[in-house]
Amino acid sequence: MTKARIAVVATGAYLIGALSGTVTLGQDKWYPSRWGANDQRGAANRLTPAKVLDAKAMMTKGAVYQLGRVYEMGMPLFGSRHYSLKIPYAFPMPGKNQAIYHDELISGELGQIGTQFDGLGHVGIGELFYNGNKRSDFAVADGLKKLGIENVGAIVTRGVLIDVAKYKNVARLNAPYSISVADLTGALQRQKVEIRPGDVVLVHTGWGSLWMKDNATFGASSPGISVAAGEWLASKEVVVVGSDNWGVEAFPSQDPNVSAPVHQLLLAKNGIYLHENLATEGLARDGVYEFAYIFAPLRLKGATGSPGNPIAIR
Amino acid sequence: MTKARIAVVATGAYLIGALSGTVTLGQDKWYPSRWGANDQRGAANRLTPAKVLDAKAMMTKGAVYQLGRVYEMGMPLFGSRHYSLKIPYAFPMPGKNQAIYHDELISGELGQIGTQFDGLGHVGIGELFYNGNKRSDFAVADGLKKLGIENVGAIVTRGVLIDVAKYKNVARLNAPYSISVADLTGALQRQKVEIRPGDVVLVHTGWGSLWMKDNATFGASSPGISVAAGEWLASKEVVVVGSDNWGVEAFPSQDPNVSAPVHQLLLAKNGIYLHENLATEGLARDGVYEFAYIFAPLRLKGATGSPGNPIAIR
Amino acid sequence: MTKARIAVVATGAYLIGALSGTVTLGQDKWYPSRWGANDQRGAANRLTPAKVLDAKAMMTKGAVYQLGRVYEMGMPLFGSRHYSLKIPYAFPMPGKNQAIYHDELISGELGQIGTQFDGLGHVGIGELFYNGNKRSDFAVADGLKKLGIENVGAIVTRGVLIDVAKYKNVARLNAPYSISVADLTGALQRQKVEIRPGDVVLVHTGWGSLWMKDNATFGASSPGISVAAGEWLASKEVVVVGSDNWGVEAFPSQDPNVSAPVHQLLLAKNGIYLHENLATEGLARDGVYEFAYIFAPLRLKGATGSPGNPIAIR
Amino acid sequence: MTKARIAVVATGAYLIGALSGTVTLGQDKWYPSRWGANDQRGAANRLTPAKVLDAKAMMTKGAVYQLGRVYEMGMPLFGSRHYSLKIPYAFPMPGKNQAIYHDELISGELGQIGTQFDGLGHVGIGELFYNGNKRSDFAVADGLKKLGIENVGAIVTRGVLIDVAKYKNVARLNAPYSISVADLTGALQRQKVEIRPGDVVLVHTGWGSLWMKDNATFGASSPGISVAAGEWLASKEVVVVGSDNWGVEAFPSQDPNVSAPVHQLLLAKNGIYLHENLATEGLARDGVYEFAYIFAPLRLKGATGSPGNPIAIR
Repeated sequence: MTKARIAVVATGAYLIGALSGTVTLGQDKWYPSRWGANDQRGAANRLTPAKVLDAKAMMTKGAVYQLGRVYEMGMPLFGSRHYSLKIPYAFPMPGKNQAIYHDELISGELGQIGTQFDGLGHVGIGELFYNGNKRSDFAVADGLKKLGIENVGAIVTRGVLIDVAKYKNVARLNAPYSISVADLTGALQRQKVEIRPGDVVLVHTGWGSLWMKDNATFGASSPGISVAAGEWLASKEVVVVGSDNWGVEAFPSQDPNVSAPVHQLLLAKNGIYLHENLATEGLARDGVYEFAYIFAPLRLKGATGSPGNPIAIR
Repeated sequence: MTKARIAVVATGAYLIGALSGTVTLGQDKWYPSRWGANDQRGAANRLTPAKVLDAKAMMTKGAVYQLGRVYEMGMPLFGSRHYSLKIPYAFPMPGKNQAIYHDELISGELGQIGTQFDGLGHVGIGELFYNGNKRSDFAVADGLKKLGIENVGAIVTRGVLIDVAKYKNVARLNAPYSISVADLTGALQRQKVEIRPGDVVLVHTGWGSLWMKDNATFGASSPGISVAAGEWLASKEVVVVGSDNWGVEAFPSQDPNVSAPVHQLLLAKNGIYLHENLATEGLARDGVYEFAYIFAPLRLKGATGSPGNPIAIR
Repeated sequence: MTKARIAVVATGAYLIGALSGTVTLGQDKWYPSRWGANDQRGAANRLTPAKVLDAKAMMTKGAVYQLGRVYEMGMPLFGSRHYSLKIPYAFPMPGKNQAIYHDELISGELGQIGTQFDGLGHVGIGELFYNGNKRSDFAVADGLKKLGIENVGAIVTRGVLIDVAKYKNVARLNAPYSISVADLTGALQRQKVEIRPGDVVLVHTGWGSLWMKDNATFGASSPGISVAAGEWLASKEVVVVGSDNWGVEAFPSQDPNVSAPVHQLLLAKNGIYLHENLATEGLARDGVYEFAYIFAPLRLKGATGSPGNPIAIR
Repeated sequence: MTKARIAVVATGAYLIGALSGTVTLGQDKWYPSRWGANDQRGAANRLTPAKVLDAKAMMTKGAVYQLGRVYEMGMPLFGSRHYSLKIPYAFPMPGKNQAIYHDELISGELGQIGTQFDGLGHVGIGELFYNGNKRSDFAVADGLKKLGIENVGAIVTRGVLIDVAKYKNVARLNAPYSISVADLTGALQRQKVEIRPGDVVLVHTGWGSLWMKDNATFGASSPGISVAAGEWLASKEVVVVGSDNWGVEAFPSQDPNVSAPVHQLLLAKNGIYLHENLATEGLARDGVYEFAYIFAPLRLKGATGSPGNPIAIR
């Protein structure tokens, strides 16, 4: 650890990495990735047949939870993103059987609205994205030339829910509460569940209860994991970190001089995906802390993320 | 008229086709549905925890197959549908950590392009759709008021692949070859696999090998199941019928005076979903005829269908 | 005036038409149009070379006023309409001269947002639109088969501004003030300007001063012309009625039991176009009451309206 | 360096081309613009009330020509651009008067498809655009921060048609015929028309006759003006150069090592706008070589161009 690095830690600005040494935002070298300089899949490389069988082992009751929210006009949207769905007039088909069909016309930033799965081309650090890919080398108008969401593949693995709201004895964490490592470990201990490499971890904050109830409050800020908690999860070698808020991490950040540091930490430095705006309330309600998590991103060529309806099965 | 056919007629459920072997969709009473006059989910009602555990039992090796094709500009599109994906300039975020993010802007008839899952609001018979819903009662500009894809829920069940191409000893069936009941039963017998209520059935025709190789031929016509084969599958009480072609059924139809009769039969009369443009070649190549089929349609409020990346696990 | 008609007047619901007898919404026959049963252009038929020369005569100073507002994200939108503009990454071109270009990606209900020109396929009376066209005969998914905006052609004619706000000694009329015939005639007399057949009439209410200043108030209601005023303008044989509000007419209507009666009166019954969200403040400020009005709708095949930047020249 | 070239250098304005007769876009200083370092309107600064009165003087007969083509699905599109228009189901309004309305949903690169007016943010030279604006300084996702089409304002000026096809005695120039200065001056002499500062010049090539007749040929290449011809037009101090082809200039260029050099010359170096895919055939047919050209770009905030329906009046 260089002197410069210590200085950074001292400012409190980039308190990332530490004992593990793998996940810092400062001077240290965070690429090439542990999966090689040409890897585009990041933590999806942790998915194996063994993890699929781990997931299988969770399916004890045959109960399925939909973790995806309904996509609808009027839902919370970040920044200048939009979502529109319209039904054009029906198309009659020729023939005496009077076949007629409907389509739907959809427009929007589809990988980054509603329940959304962030791919490795979504967030970068300056000009650098996952595996040190320079923005100018892969970001083009017709779809990302690298790190597109089509590279992820299907995710079938063990999932763990950490109900931090319950651990803190609230229905909903306040914003911008920054979830600490102790919150995660404490809740896991209470839940008697451990995280294993290749798992997906979902953090229940209760913030999702504002969805379509009070969109203004929902979007203005958010409780979420701290940089240290993100680092700890990265050290656990997870594949995806999800939550029932719009950014997984706390907004605004603890350090007022940074934006989205957990996105940078997980996506860019560790190749770990984010899953946002998840409907975790069913799992939380039923006390389901271990389950099969199944999500196959839409294979949108060159996209930064994917919409979808991930599921949990126990 | 075969004995099996008579049996079907006897159930009163599928009085389709007649002496001529083609559809007569007018006479018989096909609604209210067997799940009640208010049902909007059709064959998804066949999904139960027991079927989830059926699916679980298929997962013997932990191997996952992506059945969804890549969505990309230039892919085959039906009629006047379109698909566009663009990457706008990156958004820099405030702060000294130099966070920057990309979105993607997508426009298209998203439930009805590429790998697509047809919902019950997609195809009707004259003014009537599934469960006798009149078009004028539910089809409105801002999203279908009934039968929207958000009603389906997640599908986790046993899947069966019927490799008709292999059964006919060809890599790809010719168009518009109309797959008969005998083709299905013959192939199943050869494969030593049976269909059970609540299953998803995928029909491999080989037509999908033309995808992005010869789009003009791919879209001009198609081999697919006949009305009689659709009727037989309906009698098996399946949930979804999928295929590696763009319409599941043969185009043009055997009867030159009708369009999309299998769509009407399965969607409108039986509440059975269609899954089109599936990438079944991996399953066929590996001889995987039984598997867990998992697909959770995007919960697009009021949509006629859903894009997605369904998976098969064995 | 028949007995039935008197009854209608008595209910107060459809107090439309009167002395002129040409523009009623009740029992009377309002189609075929005066331009024949096959006409699709309505009052655009009043445009002639002579009217172009009328417009020419207005151009005394060579001063041009842009009457179109800026289209931008965040502008007021009616109902579930949307507007999105994004700049994708630049496209570099091959060659040593380093050519590179930008596009913009736009999505929205483009004929019906911002400054908008309503075509004859926009508003109907039950199932009937201009010239008695039945909705089921021309409204299809891929663009209106009749009455599309591409039929209008370019409009070059004399324009008249009626500054009702000034006449009422206010900067902005209150909502939902319903502008009377007396308001129009009084203001015209004060302005010493008359309306001639084939003119375009713009009504300045001051409501446009709320645009992008207080969008919530702007869109919640509106001052505008009454049914009687619309009828009077129709009797003057104008081509277009425009205003600096979002619907030309008062919202809500004087009669609480009707919606958009002036749209029906002008578009459906008289083939007279509406031009909404105009920036009339420049003309009002400078006291320009006569001018050349020039607008050529985008030739969007089968569209209900057109965006644009109409101009006034004096 | 030839004598002709020296003469050009002498003007100081257009140091383009060299011994090879092709562009050298690097050496000379082409910014700040003649209208100052902060100017965003380029040649639109040449528009004055006097030019409006010039336009007025052209209106001798009151005849109006629409120069905009119909926007329709299936029209020729460059690169990966798209255009979609759909009519959603009609919206019924409350009230006993049965008001009902239609919208249209449009998606596409609207400033750069069909009849299109290229703004100063469209094409650059490496990282530099008009007035030396660096791409990184103004090109952002939510709309160009400088050089957006909303800065242009309305164009009302004298227009000149140069019918090069007629001059060369053909209905349609071959592709990629490169129109020379001699072609322009010869045709103008034959037509007995001169170009004056502040004019708009339209070049008729006949290539537009392929529009919607043979889209493949139309888009594969194009006759158009040479760099030298562009330079000559720039020296005439025009405001816009338009044509009935898709790029005004010849494609491919005479010099196989460059792309779109005339775009760079006119837009970036001279602030002169391009108007593409114009319907000039009516003017050519009627021998109308002088007219009022009127076009007001849609005020699309931050857009690179504008669709529209420019008109010519004589």
